Amino acid sequence: MFDPTQLAALSAILRNGSFERAARLLGLTQSAVSQRIRLLEEQVGTPLIIRSQPCRATEAGARVFRHAEELRLLEQELRTDLGIGREPGALASGTTGADARAWPAVRIAVNADSLATWFLPALAAGEFLFDLVVDDQDHSADWLKRGEVRAAISSASRPVQGCDCLPLGALRYLATASPDFCRRWFGEEGVTPAGLQRAPMLTFNAKDRLQSRWAEQAFGTSLAGPSHWLPSSQAFVDAAAAGLGWGMNPEALAAPALAERRLRVLKADCPLDVPLYWHVSRSVLRLMQPVTQAVVEAARRALRPIP
Amino acid sequence: MFDPTQLAALSAILRNGSFERAARLLGLTQSAVSQRIRLLEEQVGTPLIIRSQPCRATEAGARVFRHAEELRLLEQELRTDLGIGREPGALASGTTGADARAWPAVRIAVNADSLATWFLPALAAGEFLFDLVVDDQDHSADWLKRGEVRAAISSASRPVQGCDCLPLGALRYLATASPDFCRRWFGEEGVTPAGLQRAPMLTFNAKDRLQSRWAEQAFGTSLAGPSHWLPSSQAFVDAAAAGLGWGMNPEALAAPALAERRLRVLKADCPLDVPLYWHVSRSVLRLMQPVTQAVVEAARRALRPIP
Repeated sequence: MFDPTQLAALSAILRNGSFERAARLLGLTQSAVSQRIRLLEEQVGTPLIIRSQPCRATEAGARVFRHAEELRLLEQELRTDLGIGREPGALASGTTGADARAWPAVRIAVNADSLATWFLPALAAGEFLFDLVVDDQDHSADWLKRGEVRAAISSASRPVQGCDCLPLGALRYLATASPDFCRRWFGEEGVTPAGLQRAPMLTFNAKDRLQSRWAEQAFGTSLAGPSHWLPSSQAFVDAAAAGLGWGMNPEALAAPALAERRLRVLKADCPLDVPLYWHVSRSVLRLMQPVTQAVVEAARRALRPIP
Repeated sequence: MFDPTQLAALSAILRNGSFERAARLLGLTQSAVSQRIRLLEEQVGTPLIIRSQPCRATEAGARVFRHAEELRLLEQELRTDLGIGREPGALASGTTGADARAWPAVRIAVNADSLATWFLPALAAGEFLFDLVVDDQDHSADWLKRGEVRAAISSASRPVQGCDCLPLGALRYLATASPDFCRRWFGEEGVTPAGLQRAPMLTFNAKDRLQSRWAEQAFGTSLAGPSHWLPSSQAFVDAAAAGLGWGMNPEALAAPALAERRLRVLKADCPLDVPLYWHVSRSVLRLMQPVTQAVVEAARRALRPIP
């Protein structure tokens, strides 16, 4: 068995980016933290931490970090089952009342547009510390497959091995641009495939296929237009409203700008509905039950039925 | 000299994530694109692209990609100086009127909170395709040092070699939480150092030092509280309003929730002002002049004087 205090030191460094902050967090001297990491690295036989600013995990370090998180969750699940309550946090002895340092930490992969629209309030449902990883809905389930998160919101409807999968609903996207942009690039005739090849579009990152999927659905043509690259959901709406480009924005996020006529829908009869699913590891199914329930309920209120 | 058509194929693949989409973008067959990459890789003597989904650059590939972008910008700067206008885009011959495919692409590193508040409308100033990289304000200048971007918004006031540096103003942050959160975690006595050690806070990522800096400024104590991890500016505000944790939010972003009393300022006399600077590479100084001017003006309207 690895020494839990060494594992805790590793987690604290990787979460907080430095030996110094980890030491403060754990109430230890910095040399005590260094010593724990040295012993852990000797036992594993390879460096676990890249001493950069901030500190990062080596490949082996990332694997050991996952193991440390896993142990903590498993113990929490055991305590829940036995009804013996939460373990006091490392520094919690002597304090009275609530202390979030004893809460279990759960890592979840979520797509940026869910995070920007409906997802967050659901997390207020339980006493957890959430560590959110943001990735494209077509790739978020990969984090679960690699064992790097405990739950994910993904467009994949097929359950990942060892996980349950619940349908959440469809997030509706509208192709939007500013009225000035439409006049400049599409003119009287409105949006055409030729216009789309010349007009600047917005792309979230290299994983973002939404603009192309919409063009295929709306016009049956593939899209090869020039693009801005903009990895932020809110900035996507702002950039469309500022006339930088056209892009696929979640209906809810675009609604205020649409109401104020700072944005216009490019083809009103042609929204793009992206189905979303909640994947959750069976190893934390009971522990996460209140979160799962809150996520499903929030999704039911905010999303459309899956086509 | 490297073959410009081979460099264009590399850029198109890395920007769009696949050989197939690059081929469509360039109006070529996929095998023609593969052939260009093969020849380029033979010339360099090492693989340039990792054939994953999406395709990513090897270390050498990233270097050649930067070179390709640099060439394009240099030529654009030359054309501006000679007054001979823009090069037509690869597919633009035969089309009439505006075509954004001929616009130069400029990569800029920007901190998430500037992107979420005041930065974007400034980009509507010129005919560029922007490729935004988001990083912490304490680290965004590193992208410029590494030559991976042409401009950056950074908290660093010292010019990077080969770059100009203009002061923009200070982005004001407020320590905020929901009223329920304050009652639960801080109670009658209000925020205290002891309360901050027990209450869950919000942290953007391992580079985010704002919560700690505020606690040091407000109480003279270092912070080692439990934290949620949440890499999104808007989600930071939403999470605070949902009662998940307290965190440093930009004044402008928190304003609506503060006005609706969904958020409360933790210590009203203790904001945190973060000075920001615009760094721009001298190699594109003239070309970028309209953008620089728009950024400086937008900052003057949105930010506070640097203390």
